[in-house]
Amino acid sequence: MDRSDINTANRLADSAREAIRPLFRGDWTAEQKEDHTAVTEADRAAEAAMRAILEEVCPGDGIIGEEYGTRNEGAGRQWVLDPIDGTQSFVAGRPIFGTLIALMQDGWPVMGVIDQAILGERWIGVIGEGTTFNGKPVQTRRCRALEGASVATTSPHAFAEEDVDAYLRLVAKAYPKRPYPVYGGDCYNYALLASGHLDIVIESGLKLHDYAALVPVVEGAGGMMSDWQGNPLDAKTAEKEGGRVIALGEPARLEEVLEAIGGVDSHDHDH
Amino acid sequence: MDRSDINTANRLADSAREAIRPLFRGDWTAEQKEDHTAVTEADRAAEAAMRAILEEVCPGDGIIGEEYGTRNEGAGRQWVLDPIDGTQSFVAGRPIFGTLIALMQDGWPVMGVIDQAILGERWIGVIGEGTTFNGKPVQTRRCRALEGASVATTSPHAFAEEDVDAYLRLVAKAYPKRPYPVYGGDCYNYALLASGHLDIVIESGLKLHDYAALVPVVEGAGGMMSDWQGNPLDAKTAEKEGGRVIALGEPARLEEVLEAIGGVDSHDHDH
Repeated sequence: MDRSDINTANRLADSAREAIRPLFRGDWTAEQKEDHTAVTEADRAAEAAMRAILEEVCPGDGIIGEEYGTRNEGAGRQWVLDPIDGTQSFVAGRPIFGTLIALMQDGWPVMGVIDQAILGERWIGVIGEGTTFNGKPVQTRRCRALEGASVATTSPHAFAEEDVDAYLRLVAKAYPKRPYPVYGGDCYNYALLASGHLDIVIESGLKLHDYAALVPVVEGAGGMMSDWQGNPLDAKTAEKEGGRVIALGEPARLEEVLEAIGGVDSHDHDH
Repeated sequence: MDRSDINTANRLADSAREAIRPLFRGDWTAEQKEDHTAVTEADRAAEAAMRAILEEVCPGDGIIGEEYGTRNEGAGRQWVLDPIDGTQSFVAGRPIFGTLIALMQDGWPVMGVIDQAILGERWIGVIGEGTTFNGKPVQTRRCRALEGASVATTSPHAFAEEDVDAYLRLVAKAYPKRPYPVYGGDCYNYALLASGHLDIVIESGLKLHDYAALVPVVEGAGGMMSDWQGNPLDAKTAEKEGGRVIALGEPARLEEVLEAIGGVDSHDHDH
């Protein structure tokens, strides 16, 4: 990837903003998808706008989009699009959803964008280069102990049954006196972690379009992301590891976090 | 209360904004209070700024503030202040916390303000007069059935043990296929309900400073608030009813909601 890919990513995010902003708190009806999550015309308009740009600028690249599916499946370069991550927040009028754009090379995310259309906030992460927030470099914060770390997740109901207990064990270690994790937020939590305002984000059941863009943003800022076994995230994490992800502002806390959630079997090997 | 009280409330909210804005995502350390919730210098600065105005403008009125306690306890008019409701969101850099200002007359909230300092959003509700959002009238939306209604709450951990089940019964009625309530948000959820973007907010363990300002905002917009027995909220709800509150955009859904959460004993009578 090179500079022109970053320009393309910025054009994509601009076009998504343009599609989303007039519809925020607007007069439309959310529909239910087959998985009983919500979708709106804003999701569709934003993805369509981004796909049109990609088909013009880099027609040979692949596209994996939340709403409109896959194009050029076998391409080495794949753009992964989630027009509105946090549709539920969008529907409720809360400006803490985000547009996610990732560029994957041979299955690995190498560039990611988290864009908040209403607040005009954009995080861009490039593996090996760093992460910026509205053009300025950002860094995760240090975290010297799991006890006292802030932990965020979108919803406790999003964890598969056996994952809830693992999640609650982590919460108990971070907040030994009173469970007090941060709820709601979707991709916006990972962006705030990249900017040094949160220590840990943990989720399960994420799809590729939910996490691909997060990895370069978090890791470019000095943090790390992995599945619940400590492996890096790639195109296969969604199926192979149940979409279980952790983001850490402080990579040195990885072992303690894995130990806290320990005992979660991955789908392909037992303990 | 009269027009000059609304002017005073606007001055209070302006002064809180001025205190909060420079500290958002700033370089300070949150402290833990005795109840293990967080407090920052922004909470203290915003409440101090508001109290200074009240002591100058209406020295005979009472003040009940989250951080600095009570003044003129016996006064018929009481200002109830929560400088930052949602300190946890403030600490995490999420602009969905709010400054809460209520005027109570003889124990009943008659005017309320929810102010979002970073986004420059202000809801003002006056009992019997209506609710405005940045000066324009707002209304809650109709909700024709509990099934399909959107339900919000800040955190499942905030419910006392016997209240969690009642809450989950309500969630199951609203989302029969997949539990999908909105999490996080504190007072901001009630403001969005007043503006017609959410149907139900349910919480327990709230203090007077958490709910006093919400009542005029929600009810002025056509919604209603009550405790979990269906009684209106007053200064005593925090102790007498465990701070259990419900906000409904559509008052006609009250019976179904009470039935869904039914079986919760209040502290002063049994079923």
